[in-house]
Amino acid sequence: MKKMEARNPAFREYVQLKISRNKFISAIGLKFTSIEPGYLEGEIDFKEMLEQQNGWLHGGVTSAILDMVQGFASYSMVEEGQQVFTVNAHISYLNPGTATKFFTRGGVVKPGKRFHFCEGELYYLKEDGTEVTVAKGSATMAVV
Amino acid sequence: MKKMEARNPAFREYVQLKISRNKFISAIGLKFTSIEPGYLEGEIDFKEMLEQQNGWLHGGVTSAILDMVQGFASYSMVEEGQQVFTVNAHISYLNPGTATKFFTRGGVVKPGKRFHFCEGELYYLKEDGTEVTVAKGSATMAVV
Amino acid sequence: MKKMEARNPAFREYVQLKISRNKFISAIGLKFTSIEPGYLEGEIDFKEMLEQQNGWLHGGVTSAILDMVQGFASYSMVEEGQQVFTVNAHISYLNPGTATKFFTRGGVVKPGKRFHFCEGELYYLKEDGTEVTVAKGSATMAVV
Amino acid sequence: MKKMEARNPAFREYVQLKISRNKFISAIGLKFTSIEPGYLEGEIDFKEMLEQQNGWLHGGVTSAILDMVQGFASYSMVEEGQQVFTVNAHISYLNPGTATKFFTRGGVVKPGKRFHFCEGELYYLKEDGTEVTVAKGSATMAVV
Repeated sequence: MKKMEARNPAFREYVQLKISRNKFISAIGLKFTSIEPGYLEGEIDFKEMLEQQNGWLHGGVTSAILDMVQGFASYSMVEEGQQVFTVNAHISYLNPGTATKFFTRGGVVKPGKRFHFCEGELYYLKEDGTEVTVAKGSATMAVV
Repeated sequence: MKKMEARNPAFREYVQLKISRNKFISAIGLKFTSIEPGYLEGEIDFKEMLEQQNGWLHGGVTSAILDMVQGFASYSMVEEGQQVFTVNAHISYLNPGTATKFFTRGGVVKPGKRFHFCEGELYYLKEDGTEVTVAKGSATMAVV
Repeated sequence: MKKMEARNPAFREYVQLKISRNKFISAIGLKFTSIEPGYLEGEIDFKEMLEQQNGWLHGGVTSAILDMVQGFASYSMVEEGQQVFTVNAHISYLNPGTATKFFTRGGVVKPGKRFHFCEGELYYLKEDGTEVTVAKGSATMAVV
Repeated sequence: MKKMEARNPAFREYVQLKISRNKFISAIGLKFTSIEPGYLEGEIDFKEMLEQQNGWLHGGVTSAILDMVQGFASYSMVEEGQQVFTVNAHISYLNPGTATKFFTRGGVVKPGKRFHFCEGELYYLKEDGTEVTVAKGSATMAVV
């Protein structure tokens, strides 16, 4: 993704504030490890509450994580006090989520005054270090 | 939605079995109140762990619920022993999720041997009983 | 779809004006047969230029028709002088487009000041008069 | 995109055959300039028949082009005699299509026996050579 410039010099604190108020993030244990203008990285340990019926990562959890990485990346590209809401989201599942730890990254591909177009993905690492993409998503985020 | 016929006479038990093995459903407290061939209804009480940063229902939770109502409706339209996996999903958010209880319904619009096309929605009831749609979604479910 | 009220009393003329300026509509021969507030119906005769490699209706043409029925329905729900642009669109293909004439209908499910959420479908009629859905789509239309 | 290996050694001829039978491609004047395993590039000159109401490239044409670049890229990754059908497609519009010539590229991100997950984009070049993305899309293609 292209390097972007934040309109809010305190963008990192603003994103952190929004994250800290989001109860679902802490409920599932998602942690954001990097917050740059328009781009976030995060990780989550697999745990029993995230299982679907085969014992793999629940597709609904995957979609929730992608919503968050794209949504909070959007918060890094708005002005102080502005809100971000998901208008719509699309997600494609490429490989089953069979791992003990998952990573996510994503951000704003095209920022705008009224809405942002975002992309994100969720993946895990094989023992040899290669990435396996679990899902790819895109979303439109309204800036209000 | 059109009335459908299940291929599996024990479809209700099969769906129940899959639901019972799904840890994320019980973690968030979603309950399915009706299981018909290709069509499910459910409900969920709002609780703190489902909050996004404004105290409303988290969009990622909404997408997870829609994934489940569509996915388990798909399980009612397969043969005993077959699995269902989400290939992709699309969701549009129409109104903020500001209520103490939410309802979901959805199902298989076009069943197939290889995949099902599904639709679902999440809504709440105003005091006068009228429905407010929070989100509408569609998904392709692979039958394996 | 719910009955809607147009903000522009001359909505029908405004939609017609936009249609008349749209060269691609006449190039493929799509005709709108009904223009109501937030809801349009149209039809198109199959012709050789619309064929994909099997001699059926091209999926790209289908997506273009759905874009138009949703987009022009959006024009019926804006004020005089406002523009409508597709922000994003999703389409699912349910049955192959094997007919000599196709019908489309669709409109605004949730109107807004900044954008409309729309749905549309394309279908044909079997000899006995029953409908066969070729594709269903949804779209977000920005109002500028 | 990752370099891929075609299952059909005559993949280029097979894609060309399918393209040659597709009437809509020649009707709008799209030309594929590069055919590699799982990846295609193409270009199209703007012309009056492709105009929407503001004189720009029609969004429906854009979606049709993306359907084709992703669909024919899928044909390069199947066995001789197999067919490819679009199951569903998602498209996001990033910038208006205001140019005299447009380019497209796209392909198979994750090939499979039953379906391919594809991505594609449409763009034009500014005078200084930088690309302007008009739209990005993804699609699921069934292999039959």
